[in-house]
Amino acid sequence: MADLFEQYLAKEAGMGEEMLKQIRSKAIGRRLRRNEQLLMPGEICRHKVFVLKGLLRTYSVSDGGNETILQFSPEMNWTLDAESYDQQIPSRYYISAVENSEVLLWHKNDFDRLLADFPALKKYAEQLISRNIYSSRQRLQTALGATPEERYEEFVRTNPSLLARLPLRMIAAYLGISLKTLTRIRHAQWAR
Amino acid sequence: MADLFEQYLAKEAGMGEEMLKQIRSKAIGRRLRRNEQLLMPGEICRHKVFVLKGLLRTYSVSDGGNETILQFSPEMNWTLDAESYDQQIPSRYYISAVENSEVLLWHKNDFDRLLADFPALKKYAEQLISRNIYSSRQRLQTALGATPEERYEEFVRTNPSLLARLPLRMIAAYLGISLKTLTRIRHAQWAR
Repeated sequence: MADLFEQYLAKEAGMGEEMLKQIRSKAIGRRLRRNEQLLMPGEICRHKVFVLKGLLRTYSVSDGGNETILQFSPEMNWTLDAESYDQQIPSRYYISAVENSEVLLWHKNDFDRLLADFPALKKYAEQLISRNIYSSRQRLQTALGATPEERYEEFVRTNPSLLARLPLRMIAAYLGISLKTLTRIRHAQWAR
Repeated sequence: MADLFEQYLAKEAGMGEEMLKQIRSKAIGRRLRRNEQLLMPGEICRHKVFVLKGLLRTYSVSDGGNETILQFSPEMNWTLDAESYDQQIPSRYYISAVENSEVLLWHKNDFDRLLADFPALKKYAEQLISRNIYSSRQRLQTALGATPEERYEEFVRTNPSLLARLPLRMIAAYLGISLKTLTRIRHAQWAR
């Protein structure tokens, strides 16, 4: 599985073989069963995570028990709770596996060292952060300004490959709408 | 007014006098009248903006004419459309003055040069980006998971000084709720 990571990074960030070997050598591999937690509220996010296989979600649960999903992280994506990781403070989020998954983990100290040693990795990390900012802004705009129908259509358009992998309740929790509303929207679409 | 900027940055980022002078020397001062646009959709965001005085807002307008406000930027805050600025592509947002305002502008080329020349400025810029990521995530969580009442209460708690400076319709556009709903919430609170 580790080959996949090196292939991905060579292609995505144009990194050379020696550098990839160094980065890879600091990673810890881990398998997660479906529904297994990688991070829980109150814990400190100590690792950067790369998803080799499967699908993770980052979410919070309100006092009333409602789940809000901030992010899905399918294979070939990075994830973490940035605030908890950067500042090494307790997280307010869960990160858990939607499917049986395989991840690579880097301890913050090791990754910080890699960033300092490899300017190309630092540049790649900055690009990831920028993309994260752009997509968060787009997502906020949709959450604030779009109707439930528009939100669902945008999700289908931008995440076609995730649709069949997610239970409806998770799609609803990602869109910030009720399961009932989502079911109604989907029925209306089938009826067209 | 420019003194305010140097004081702010000296305190906020611990920058020395020589560096502040250099940064300041590349800035262009500009006054904006209330409702004046600093950026419009289709334009490229060519400047980093620091608000010395007054209040700006970043917003989009849907095809149906609905305004969604992504950000308020009161005095002593930075603003820009990151995606348009980083990639020098047309923006999808407006940035305009809520009050008569005074801003400092840095052309991207000049600011990039300053970032390369001053590692402390680069570090400060990275901190701002991180804070932006944390607050965007919090805002997204609220937009997706909180009731209109909870959203309004969070806004009042986190932005007490902005409340009296903003027309209600802008608060509603920031919270992603209708003016009618906001008015109802406020009446209910007064009646408590």
